[in-house]
Amino acid sequence: MRAVEIIRKKRDGCELSREEIGYLVREYSAGRIPDYQLSAFLMAVYFQSMTTPEVAAFTEEMRTSGEVIDLAFIPGCKVDKHSTGGVGDKTSLVLAPAVAAAGVTVPMMSGRGLGHTGGTLDKLESIPGFEVHLSAEKFKKLLAAAKLAFIGQTENIVPADRKLYALRDVTATVESRPLITASIMSKKLAEGIDGLVLDVKTGSGAFMKAQAQAEALAEAMVSLGKACGKKVVALVTDMNQPLGDYAGNSLEVIECLDVLKGGGPADLVALCTELSAHCLVLGEAADTLEEGRRIYRKTIESGKALEKFREVIELQGGDPRVVEDYRRLPAARLTADVPSETAGFVGAMETEKIGLALCVLGAGRETLDSVIDPAVGVRFHKKIGDAVSIGEALCTVFYNDENRCGEAQKRLLESYVIAPEPAPRPLLIKKTLT
Amino acid sequence: MRAVEIIRKKRDGCELSREEIGYLVREYSAGRIPDYQLSAFLMAVYFQSMTTPEVAAFTEEMRTSGEVIDLAFIPGCKVDKHSTGGVGDKTSLVLAPAVAAAGVTVPMMSGRGLGHTGGTLDKLESIPGFEVHLSAEKFKKLLAAAKLAFIGQTENIVPADRKLYALRDVTATVESRPLITASIMSKKLAEGIDGLVLDVKTGSGAFMKAQAQAEALAEAMVSLGKACGKKVVALVTDMNQPLGDYAGNSLEVIECLDVLKGGGPADLVALCTELSAHCLVLGEAADTLEEGRRIYRKTIESGKALEKFREVIELQGGDPRVVEDYRRLPAARLTADVPSETAGFVGAMETEKIGLALCVLGAGRETLDSVIDPAVGVRFHKKIGDAVSIGEALCTVFYNDENRCGEAQKRLLESYVIAPEPAPRPLLIKKTLT
Repeated sequence: MRAVEIIRKKRDGCELSREEIGYLVREYSAGRIPDYQLSAFLMAVYFQSMTTPEVAAFTEEMRTSGEVIDLAFIPGCKVDKHSTGGVGDKTSLVLAPAVAAAGVTVPMMSGRGLGHTGGTLDKLESIPGFEVHLSAEKFKKLLAAAKLAFIGQTENIVPADRKLYALRDVTATVESRPLITASIMSKKLAEGIDGLVLDVKTGSGAFMKAQAQAEALAEAMVSLGKACGKKVVALVTDMNQPLGDYAGNSLEVIECLDVLKGGGPADLVALCTELSAHCLVLGEAADTLEEGRRIYRKTIESGKALEKFREVIELQGGDPRVVEDYRRLPAARLTADVPSETAGFVGAMETEKIGLALCVLGAGRETLDSVIDPAVGVRFHKKIGDAVSIGEALCTVFYNDENRCGEAQKRLLESYVIAPEPAPRPLLIKKTLT
Repeated sequence: MRAVEIIRKKRDGCELSREEIGYLVREYSAGRIPDYQLSAFLMAVYFQSMTTPEVAAFTEEMRTSGEVIDLAFIPGCKVDKHSTGGVGDKTSLVLAPAVAAAGVTVPMMSGRGLGHTGGTLDKLESIPGFEVHLSAEKFKKLLAAAKLAFIGQTENIVPADRKLYALRDVTATVESRPLITASIMSKKLAEGIDGLVLDVKTGSGAFMKAQAQAEALAEAMVSLGKACGKKVVALVTDMNQPLGDYAGNSLEVIECLDVLKGGGPADLVALCTELSAHCLVLGEAADTLEEGRRIYRKTIESGKALEKFREVIELQGGDPRVVEDYRRLPAARLTADVPSETAGFVGAMETEKIGLALCVLGAGRETLDSVIDPAVGVRFHKKIGDAVSIGEALCTVFYNDENRCGEAQKRLLESYVIAPEPAPRPLLIKKTLT
């Protein structure tokens, strides 16, 4: 088998065999196929795409390129949730404890924020002492004990994806649906799950701005999951504005604790309910979605979800007292409002720009090695459809560094589009694919 | 400027600026853009193609990536001919002396055979002593003295193309029209020509098997030539069968000497006449094509073309006595016929397969470092349209190595398609683009 022949075959739109894909991924991982052949292959995939069997083979080869976590020793279905990322997207911190409290094991492998999007690991690390760098052994032990553990992707899991992603990043081949699908799914499958609920974001703050794109990705991932013998459900959800009222790491932890205590903003509560209900159905703790929703609400009302979160914080080395005493979380020294310059209604929010304003404040990362400030962030007083008068605060900035506040305020003001007529509030859950 | 942004722009079908193309070629040549970014770019070009201004900028950057030969000190138009390659394609050895004898300077930079195609340098080197490795200085001196010199591409000419071609070869990006165009034209323009006649081959022995493909390439090269301020004419010509009656290096030299003496097979004579006439028009030695044909015939009939070839052989260190005494050229020890197994008419010839049979004999190169035997080759007794009876020789193999003869005979027999009805002879000159 020769790499150049495989590249030519893909270039000409032919379907590659499992053997050809296996050869490519294995030899590339081993350094026997050079980067310059892989990048030509990736660009050919960008133009010619891949069939579901091809993506399944690609995913499987990536999955087995490193350590694979085997959770078969834990009885029952293991279910995870994955989001394609956005601003204020914090459902994992509510969903995972709620689903685990209802008896389903949740092996949650998460990422860090990059660019305009936040990351679950960064949010968890704003809890003093919370440790996300677990060994696979520790991860399995915690899962067996508490049905829930949060872990960051280790060096050993899916190394082929890490190498490929770095190459895609510098060769303009990130935006390829089969490659995105294989990258996400190979990591998820390597963590030993049986079921997966996907939250595919669409709108001004999502990677997939157009809903048709997001739906196509959701469909591809559901097909792939089935081809790999896993139960996968995908929800296409709104990211035309931040989710909930807060963005910023410790601020989002507080907002999630509010939801776990039965409060919190309506959009966040609704999405947590829906995603949790799907996890409970996949995890065989509920027969129907409606039953899933009822069980979710019960774990909140009974305090069991909150108790599960407190337990996990303690097991992962964090300070469990934050659950009751928010002053134990990092807090910004200063706040400043962003007043509206016009009267009217919020017609749209440029959510990616909001994410970049959060980077300016220090809440997010511009590059992989940026250092973040867990305390800073933004509270959104106004969201799409809300009326606003001149001088009224659109949002409030929580900051520590005076030099960064002005620029963040400016960007936040620019990201609000004020219209003379009221705009309809965006539909939160746009589509469910099973 | 960042390479990844230029790749993305091309991937998305946008036109690149002259600056962007210049940056890419220069930084790649200097080793500051890695192979893996260039190969992704090349694959994007394969799918999105390039506009004429883009190809012109790309060609110009490649041309100036190394030594550029300046022939402005020689008065008059300098004209070269370039063929895209085939089997038995030997017109350069007739055309160049004939055109030079008529007063037009012909700086002829040629290549070697590779795969199924032959190369002018290999043919010339079958003449004992003939030296094609000239310095640019020696080349210029010969051109000024004799109006003709044959040179191989030196290391210093268009090094960017050499580096790029090696990358294209292993990334399945050779077959891209703008890249082929830029590769050919950058080399031709670096040799200091004012006019170029292109012989774009089409058919079973050409790189461009389909005529539409060949025409599109011809058109692209003519457009590019004009964009670069050069006079370019392209002829799309037949390569559905070998050109002339012989293939093999010294055998083709003999056939060309026959043509220069007023003999030779009709198809070879016709193509030499036509290509030479175009060279003479571009070189301003003839006002019309008809006058060009007359002048060509006169250089043959008067013996001036033959005399010019003898002069050039001597100037480039070769033995000029070969012109009269063919026994001074390498000759194969043995011959063997390839008899037909059926009666009928030659309906088609798989000419690429014939070229590969020549490689088996040792007349051509399978890889760049194959050693060739100048004496071996094939004489074609039957070509498309000819009647053949059982046992009659289709062709004769000239060989030195008994171990190679059988395989070559087998392949040659397979490459002849015998039909029950007479097939029309292929039209030699299919299209002329100016």
